[in-house]
Amino acid sequence: MAQRGERVMGRFLGAENVERGQAYLEDLDPELHRYIIDFVYGEVYAGDVLDPKTRALCTIAMLAVRDQQLQLGVYVRAARRQGASEEEIREVLRQVAVYAGFPSAWNALATMKASFERFPEEDEPGS
Amino acid sequence: MAQRGERVMGRFLGAENVERGQAYLEDLDPELHRYIIDFVYGEVYAGDVLDPKTRALCTIAMLAVRDQQLQLGVYVRAARRQGASEEEIREVLRQVAVYAGFPSAWNALATMKASFERFPEEDEPGS
Amino acid sequence: MAQRGERVMGRFLGAENVERGQAYLEDLDPELHRYIIDFVYGEVYAGDVLDPKTRALCTIAMLAVRDQQLQLGVYVRAARRQGASEEEIREVLRQVAVYAGFPSAWNALATMKASFERFPEEDEPGS
Amino acid sequence: MAQRGERVMGRFLGAENVERGQAYLEDLDPELHRYIIDFVYGEVYAGDVLDPKTRALCTIAMLAVRDQQLQLGVYVRAARRQGASEEEIREVLRQVAVYAGFPSAWNALATMKASFERFPEEDEPGS
Amino acid sequence: MAQRGERVMGRFLGAENVERGQAYLEDLDPELHRYIIDFVYGEVYAGDVLDPKTRALCTIAMLAVRDQQLQLGVYVRAARRQGASEEEIREVLRQVAVYAGFPSAWNALATMKASFERFPEEDEPGS
Amino acid sequence: MAQRGERVMGRFLGAENVERGQAYLEDLDPELHRYIIDFVYGEVYAGDVLDPKTRALCTIAMLAVRDQQLQLGVYVRAARRQGASEEEIREVLRQVAVYAGFPSAWNALATMKASFERFPEEDEPGS
Repeated sequence: MAQRGERVMGRFLGAENVERGQAYLEDLDPELHRYIIDFVYGEVYAGDVLDPKTRALCTIAMLAVRDQQLQLGVYVRAARRQGASEEEIREVLRQVAVYAGFPSAWNALATMKASFERFPEEDEPGS
Repeated sequence: MAQRGERVMGRFLGAENVERGQAYLEDLDPELHRYIIDFVYGEVYAGDVLDPKTRALCTIAMLAVRDQQLQLGVYVRAARRQGASEEEIREVLRQVAVYAGFPSAWNALATMKASFERFPEEDEPGS
Repeated sequence: MAQRGERVMGRFLGAENVERGQAYLEDLDPELHRYIIDFVYGEVYAGDVLDPKTRALCTIAMLAVRDQQLQLGVYVRAARRQGASEEEIREVLRQVAVYAGFPSAWNALATMKASFERFPEEDEPGS
Repeated sequence: MAQRGERVMGRFLGAENVERGQAYLEDLDPELHRYIIDFVYGEVYAGDVLDPKTRALCTIAMLAVRDQQLQLGVYVRAARRQGASEEEIREVLRQVAVYAGFPSAWNALATMKASFERFPEEDEPGS
Repeated sequence: MAQRGERVMGRFLGAENVERGQAYLEDLDPELHRYIIDFVYGEVYAGDVLDPKTRALCTIAMLAVRDQQLQLGVYVRAARRQGASEEEIREVLRQVAVYAGFPSAWNALATMKASFERFPEEDEPGS
Repeated sequence: MAQRGERVMGRFLGAENVERGQAYLEDLDPELHRYIIDFVYGEVYAGDVLDPKTRALCTIAMLAVRDQQLQLGVYVRAARRQGASEEEIREVLRQVAVYAGFPSAWNALATMKASFERFPEEDEPGS
């Protein structure tokens, strides 16, 4: 399951980011790290009915509603990697205003904007 | 804008449900009703970059994370109407466990199950 | 402080409701009951700079944003008792859509409507 | 509606701040900007039954309960502009402890204090 | 891991309740069921450093803060099964008032009271 | 009650930190300060049925679920002072993933790690 988890994690976060992400998590808490690899990516994200782009946009929706800016920044990149355009991400984040209020939508768009400015090259999938 | 709002609302909630939904909202609060037609459907949901099925799944994601069971029940039907399969909806709701905890995922799946049992015929879009 | 708490509680909830409310709380948890009399009403609500109507409307705002329907029903009555009109309460609850999303505003307006239907006579202060 | 929205926005945020605020929002997301002008200020805040000071205090109540410090800082100034005294704002924020817990009240009072230190001159309305 | 998960689940929820609980979850969503057995009980709850009574009280704390009454009812019983007294559970729930506000503490105490009334015999561990 | 409150506060936060903590709170808001001494510590935390270590772990559970990092940092130290080991605190924080999602657990573990790095000497009670 760890192997499947790492493969799925790499698909969403980018193979080149997995090693650094795993080192960070291992240092934070080895158990949480294992849960994320085995359960989050090895089980939940491994479901193959939802296409990866839709899944990443749903992740963005959930994180923005919960005001989790750190992980939202990571998943803005993940969604782009799955082929989501800037305008699609913006439409999801505008919709946050309807379900969690304007401040959450505003904060999320600011996080998105900062991510695009920091990683301008990732506009297209596979980059 | 009201006209566009009603058209978009009908696309998501089903033309046959709009009249009853509008009567309910008008009775609840005419201003809120107007906001929902003009702003929620006439503006936010009228964005045409995000495809309607993905948008409905993001709505489900947001409502489940916020434990809003009443509106979630409505949007489970809306998502099916846009072509989302039961298994796709389930994958979104399982993912709620990762971002808002297991009780929210559990509650949301119970709401989804009740909706499918009450409206069994709506499995395919356009029905 | 208990004496002040009971007096302030009576001002907001109505002297005729205090006895029943206190019996309920005493049965639920005598300590929580004491906290509510001594701290919530004897301290926080005893502040005399904020006028009681504004305070009750702020309470409504907070409860609606937190989706606490039970206590919101109680405070819709309290706000009317302090002279808030139905339309003022509605304007506060519509604003909930901006800061906590439409489902919370919708739920709160439904709670308000039910309270007005159940206690129609309380429209004017002092009734 | 845009015209009404800008006028109402100016009344709450201060005419001298509107231009800068609008430039920021336009850069963040032109659609969100439009929603805020047309819907938030042009509709919700344009309601004329609730007096502006009470409305601003309710906004503060909602933002503090949701731990939205950025927008809370903006609305502490807006409330002062509508004539709310420092002590009235403090009483609202202390009440946050009752409905959302002490950490939220504490965070909100810290935001308020920082706002008063940064903009000491705004104590009276119209300044 | 499933075997460990079922054993740990039985320790917290009572061996006699596991079969019924599993049938319910299997019917709700077989994948969520598997996650709960393998991940929640097989991993998180299987940690052996925290004693089971403290863990159950922390669960109660978390559920009450999140206003999850359904699962809170289940865990009030689980905490009693691990030897927590009614007064210990009450002290945890009163503390909820400090961190999530009085309405959440109130709701949680009502859930606790209903659980004790429905299952009066479970006061002692192992019953 | 103030005397009892200060004594209980000192037991949890460390006598050597109380003076500085009180000066900070007094400067933030004298009323909130009084509430914390008299109500939070003088009443809620003064309950003597729950042992102090379990209480501090429940506090950590509540703060982590509410994403209150500032106060969580304070209570990680308080829990260690009551004899909670690093691994016990970690088990509580991992469990946050189950009830409030992985981002909240992650954020809480990062806060815990920062606290341990900043105050390495406090591993044992009474230090």
